[in-house]
Amino acid sequence: MTSSDTPDQAPDAPAERTGIAAQDWATAAADPQYRAAVVDLLGALAYGELAAFERLAEDAKLAPTLADKAELAKMASAEFHHFERLRDRLTEIGAEPTEAMDPFVAALDGFHRQTAPSDWLEGLVKAYVGDSIASDFYREVAARLDSDTRELVLAVLDDTGHAGFAVEKVRAAIDADPRVGGRLALWARRLMGEALSQSQRVVADRDALSTMLVGGVADGFDLAEVGRMFTRITEAHTKRMAALGLAA
Amino acid sequence: MTSSDTPDQAPDAPAERTGIAAQDWATAAADPQYRAAVVDLLGALAYGELAAFERLAEDAKLAPTLADKAELAKMASAEFHHFERLRDRLTEIGAEPTEAMDPFVAALDGFHRQTAPSDWLEGLVKAYVGDSIASDFYREVAARLDSDTRELVLAVLDDTGHAGFAVEKVRAAIDADPRVGGRLALWARRLMGEALSQSQRVVADRDALSTMLVGGVADGFDLAEVGRMFTRITEAHTKRMAALGLAA
Repeated sequence: MTSSDTPDQAPDAPAERTGIAAQDWATAAADPQYRAAVVDLLGALAYGELAAFERLAEDAKLAPTLADKAELAKMASAEFHHFERLRDRLTEIGAEPTEAMDPFVAALDGFHRQTAPSDWLEGLVKAYVGDSIASDFYREVAARLDSDTRELVLAVLDDTGHAGFAVEKVRAAIDADPRVGGRLALWARRLMGEALSQSQRVVADRDALSTMLVGGVADGFDLAEVGRMFTRITEAHTKRMAALGLAA
Repeated sequence: MTSSDTPDQAPDAPAERTGIAAQDWATAAADPQYRAAVVDLLGALAYGELAAFERLAEDAKLAPTLADKAELAKMASAEFHHFERLRDRLTEIGAEPTEAMDPFVAALDGFHRQTAPSDWLEGLVKAYVGDSIASDFYREVAARLDSDTRELVLAVLDDTGHAGFAVEKVRAAIDADPRVGGRLALWARRLMGEALSQSQRVVADRDALSTMLVGGVADGFDLAEVGRMFTRITEAHTKRMAALGLAA
């Protein structure tokens, strides 16, 4: 997952923390609904990392050079290590990692199946767009989590180097043949649409997670705030596409 | 790569070291033919690890459970870290990693293309058989290398945990349905045949490497010794197949 180009307004300044965001895990987890929401969140993130590992390893096969292949394998391996940290944390808080991940397998596998890249550049754009949106989303959520969970979530969102690599390769390809830009812009729009439709599916299915997102459990999230969050994420996406040389 | 079940006679007892095996890299590399042979060897091993990463990541998709998938992803990631060490070493001794790997891409890709597993069990047997044979071979060669190169080669042959995992899963499948054993025994024979034919192709193509293997550069390897080495490797393979419950 990448850390660059996060939304401007991500409210994670430590000084402002109140409620759950000011508590540690031991205190916050006393509320069983909060605990269930965090298990959901870590399960979704863990399977996301495992799926990202598979996707990057798969994309490595499309790499035009051995150096590109090694670069993608490196990122895949970094995603795997993030997965390990999340899985270990689930175990540590007494959750069964496989059970925590299971509810998110269908949506994430569905997303990847619907958006299988047909070439190297589509793979790079997908990894970049997908990781960036996921990273923006988790960063927004992280600001409302207890301090221990927040620290872990932010750590596994650490840039695996993919963003810079993808931007450089895609820009070079568009410079070499401007028609590539039109095709990839369409592709990025399709990715965003599919990501939104799978997210809605997850939110509709997972009560604890959605309750946390729309307020009630973690503080500060109400429906209006969720709307603003999606606006921030969409704006950040538009900026990233422009940086890539693509119209969003 | 796995370290279990190495041939009984692998001559790597430090007390017996003479000639190049008693030298460090700085001394041994003064001979340009030895240097070229080591660059070949590290290049072959590096691409082997990168290809193993891709193969294991690919096999992870066939995994019947999330826990199996995570296990394979872990091994893939371990192979990638071995690749990194070999690539860094190539750079350190002034070789261009991509150039060093290039001569071995066709043979290794050819092997993997000719032996694409059709299911999870075939994938496990392939990883186990392939890694074990490669590991036996490199361990034999390592005993004739300068001390610095030997240490690196032995380190990247460290067990990634695949052997134990594969043996356990394959034995359980044969216990559950003995007919599976017949099919997998045929498969293992096909793998061994394909591995030998691709190795011959590499040896025929790479002068420096073959010269080292059949004596002339590194000490102690003559044609009779190469024959004995292949006997040891084949015997170890037969033992491993028996341990798996397969006739070799």
